[in-house]
Amino acid sequence: MLYGAIEGGGTKFVCAVGASPQEMHESVVLPTSDPQSTLAACVEFFAAAERKFGALDALGFACFGPLDLRTDGPTFGHMLATPKAGWSGVDLLGPLRSRFSVPIAIDTDVAAAALAEWRLGAGRGFGSVAYVTVGTGIGADIAPRDRNVRRLMHSEMGHIAVRRDPRDTFAGVCPFHGDCLEGLASGPAIYKRWGCELAELPPEHVAWQVIGSYLGQLAATIALVLSVEGIVFGGGVMASGLLLPHIRTAAAATLRGYLQPLAHEGALDGYITAPLLGTRAGIVGALLLAELARGSDR
Amino acid sequence: MLYGAIEGGGTKFVCAVGASPQEMHESVVLPTSDPQSTLAACVEFFAAAERKFGALDALGFACFGPLDLRTDGPTFGHMLATPKAGWSGVDLLGPLRSRFSVPIAIDTDVAAAALAEWRLGAGRGFGSVAYVTVGTGIGADIAPRDRNVRRLMHSEMGHIAVRRDPRDTFAGVCPFHGDCLEGLASGPAIYKRWGCELAELPPEHVAWQVIGSYLGQLAATIALVLSVEGIVFGGGVMASGLLLPHIRTAAAATLRGYLQPLAHEGALDGYITAPLLGTRAGIVGALLLAELARGSDR
Repeated sequence: MLYGAIEGGGTKFVCAVGASPQEMHESVVLPTSDPQSTLAACVEFFAAAERKFGALDALGFACFGPLDLRTDGPTFGHMLATPKAGWSGVDLLGPLRSRFSVPIAIDTDVAAAALAEWRLGAGRGFGSVAYVTVGTGIGADIAPRDRNVRRLMHSEMGHIAVRRDPRDTFAGVCPFHGDCLEGLASGPAIYKRWGCELAELPPEHVAWQVIGSYLGQLAATIALVLSVEGIVFGGGVMASGLLLPHIRTAAAATLRGYLQPLAHEGALDGYITAPLLGTRAGIVGALLLAELARGSDR
Repeated sequence: MLYGAIEGGGTKFVCAVGASPQEMHESVVLPTSDPQSTLAACVEFFAAAERKFGALDALGFACFGPLDLRTDGPTFGHMLATPKAGWSGVDLLGPLRSRFSVPIAIDTDVAAAALAEWRLGAGRGFGSVAYVTVGTGIGADIAPRDRNVRRLMHSEMGHIAVRRDPRDTFAGVCPFHGDCLEGLASGPAIYKRWGCELAELPPEHVAWQVIGSYLGQLAATIALVLSVEGIVFGGGVMASGLLLPHIRTAAAATLRGYLQPLAHEGALDGYITAPLLGTRAGIVGALLLAELARGSDR
């Protein structure tokens, strides 16, 4: 079997081929430029891979969003309106489809990372998980997902409204909502408030508690609304590992023992966890998408 | 085919038998007393129905929660800790199983109502819907649901944290959270604040906007987190029909055009709707659960 995978981000595209999600043959990192050149470079990588390893069996594309994922619509697999110049409305699958006649699955980079952490990472063994990435933006999605169920679009839970921490008067940076979760707790929001990254602030700085309180509210909302069996927090802002205890404390303070399976002492330590795959989650998720497209797995 | 259905509530249990969810033969309303007597009365109703209509093929049980729905656990189908005296920990399926050797499906009353409105009510034609009931408590769940996915428990989104309406200083009535959504916007919260039901207040009373703002935040959270194609608001507090426009206005004010499929003028009129099945949603949902248990449908 030969699976092809793309992880499309705002600054770089990663392409890879592998015999399975656990067995990658080779990969390449391409700078994100205009959509035509970027997607053409992806096609070129896979064409070269076919000459080396034989014909592709399926492709998986994990892309930054927002994406049109309505399988029954005429613009399935197109980019929705995005601040990323030149990318709004782009048909992401067209260039791949016109070169490779294989099944292709597409999803957001966050949903792919959720799939990867659930199948092969920190969420292994859980019936269902949510994956949250806290970086330039805040994105979150769940795995597994019933792909036959038609939805409005993908999850956009990084933009939920949160209650203000009384110590925090920052206006927020979200161009739509100002002080939604992403507006208050994303990397740029941290930088604009305190002039540096969270990891550069001392552990006793109020920023840790403030950001933890907002992300803890997201964790509580995920537990109440989605009732997944675990939540994995990844992304650049989480990298130091010091934020996780603050998130657990805030989630516990919000839930107050209401959800019985999480009411016992220490329950949130196992419920809210760090990722295992780190920065590999996206490309591994894209390989899992290819496997899904091939129909060799759920 | 003969399906049996129970809608178990805090004050009454409804039992019914039918050839399909659309074709009910007969039903009975029983007062909720202690669990043993109540469940015995249900068994008795179905035993009498079998003498009249022949053998049951499957049973569906839509019950007030919280419920243990972990199919792989030893206490599947038991009531979790509940303020309803005598009902905590009760094995809801035991009495039925010891009398009827048919497949039985159990879910919360809210999840069953969601299923009913999606399949046969206001959510017909949508790929996925959320159903919210606003009454003594606030409950919400979605349909369809992949029943093979193991979750923590069922949705408890009535207890999400909401942002305070600045005109509202009420402390809230939720014994766990005080001023969570249910604490602020349920029937008892309305009564405690204003001394009457919402429908008894004039349309220009601030209560309509305050309660609408909280429920609109839930609608926005549902759209962002679950991305369902529609949201149905039912329950006693919704009965007058006057609250729905306030919920739509508040949801729009929270989302601010961020979700592209809901960004156009009037989009929320079709997205946030009234139920079609009214008080029948629970028992119809229980019949649909029986149908699911029989495996004759997804």
